[in-house]
Amino acid sequence: MSRNNLTIVKVGGKVIDEEERLNDFLNAFSRVDGDKIIIHGGGKLATDIGKRMNISPKMIHGRRVTDRETLDLVTMVYAGLVNKKIVAKLQALNINALGLTGTDANLLEACHRPPLNGIDYGLIGEVHYVNVEVIKKLLDQNFSMVIAPLTHNKKGQIFNTNADTVASKIASGMSDYFQVQLIYAFELNGVYEDLSNEESIIERLSKSNYKELCQQAKIHTGMMPKLDNAFQAVACGVKDVVIGNYKNIDKFNHSRQVKYTKISAT
Amino acid sequence: MSRNNLTIVKVGGKVIDEEERLNDFLNAFSRVDGDKIIIHGGGKLATDIGKRMNISPKMIHGRRVTDRETLDLVTMVYAGLVNKKIVAKLQALNINALGLTGTDANLLEACHRPPLNGIDYGLIGEVHYVNVEVIKKLLDQNFSMVIAPLTHNKKGQIFNTNADTVASKIASGMSDYFQVQLIYAFELNGVYEDLSNEESIIERLSKSNYKELCQQAKIHTGMMPKLDNAFQAVACGVKDVVIGNYKNIDKFNHSRQVKYTKISAT
Repeated sequence: MSRNNLTIVKVGGKVIDEEERLNDFLNAFSRVDGDKIIIHGGGKLATDIGKRMNISPKMIHGRRVTDRETLDLVTMVYAGLVNKKIVAKLQALNINALGLTGTDANLLEACHRPPLNGIDYGLIGEVHYVNVEVIKKLLDQNFSMVIAPLTHNKKGQIFNTNADTVASKIASGMSDYFQVQLIYAFELNGVYEDLSNEESIIERLSKSNYKELCQQAKIHTGMMPKLDNAFQAVACGVKDVVIGNYKNIDKFNHSRQVKYTKISAT
Repeated sequence: MSRNNLTIVKVGGKVIDEEERLNDFLNAFSRVDGDKIIIHGGGKLATDIGKRMNISPKMIHGRRVTDRETLDLVTMVYAGLVNKKIVAKLQALNINALGLTGTDANLLEACHRPPLNGIDYGLIGEVHYVNVEVIKKLLDQNFSMVIAPLTHNKKGQIFNTNADTVASKIASGMSDYFQVQLIYAFELNGVYEDLSNEESIIERLSKSNYKELCQQAKIHTGMMPKLDNAFQAVACGVKDVVIGNYKNIDKFNHSRQVKYTKISAT
């Protein structure tokens, strides 16, 4: 039996932050055929609202620490403000969007991530269970899920979780049932060898290629977690992993004019 | 064919605001048999967080005005913080909770409520469509929905909507398919003729009875919108409408010791 297509799009912060970009992205998403899921973060909004509430971001080595106050903040902003704004806009585009977190319907179970190199980043979840059966059932009912990157331990504790990782885990879990295309969408056209040169886009990135470029310090450090998650997805059976522009998500593999980075296993 | 039971519980602000009360409520909810739905508001939390963000509540004649800023605030607090806290706690009690707003799955369509007595209360929704088919489908999958009182116009606009009204509308819509019990749960045992006298609880309140008590100014004005919604639900075919204590929601009709107010059509 041939498997249906499922498109999973992780959309980054800078697209969420600006209304016009968000609208362009959602319009492109509405044109994607077949079953589809969005995973979103919260962009600068969580930091901005945190500032207004006098919650200053706690950072260690450039990474945010999720204490209780910060967890409440991201739960409000990601699962409330951002998620429902996206859902309402998609409903207006006649996409039957259903906004969820990993807590809802027990979609994503996680455990508390242990300290990393001796540093405790707080209430961060490490996903150990993706409820593929429930996701499948909801897709069967033609819902387009919009997922905020919060997980839980099924003992009442919510965790903040990296959205790139959530996207990779869900894509991997769903690839038993679907031909999954996982798209990391953001404001650039893909991964570049030289960010100042539009022509230096890497159209096909293999694992060995990636290692080499990292050693030559040609990959922007900010891209590395995204790429690690992308390669993880490929290794777990996701058919097609793409990093590209939020405006083009309906065009990858369909148009030769559109440039993007395709992640390949070998 | 006999219809299944469906229990719909609207839970009030003061229960949401205190962790211990919320836990007691959710424990009682987990003991309710059959299909069940929670509709919640946000309690003082929205006001408290608004204060921290320097959003001062705009009130006219004691009613909150929902401007754009306030809409974002209640969307964050109701759909994010409160909704996901309840869902995570229910999942820990092995209830398969699914947190939603009226925007998700196009559950509740509304139009912008026109000014009332010449006063514009802002982005308030008047529900004109309850998606009973979707609610039925989700109940069939054994989800216990937890619904935050936000609605939308299917043109991208979210509205703040009275939680008592949302509960009444959903209960009315579902009564074509289920024997619905609608419970307005709060920190009192029911409606009293004299709030200072525990013995003055009104065990059965009919419409004519209610009118009479209103004329005698024996009904607390704060109770009136709740009671109007309760009578509306009875008029629309909801089998059983109860106002009672959040700790007793699994005991109405089951225990003679438990006091509560039952709303009756005649």
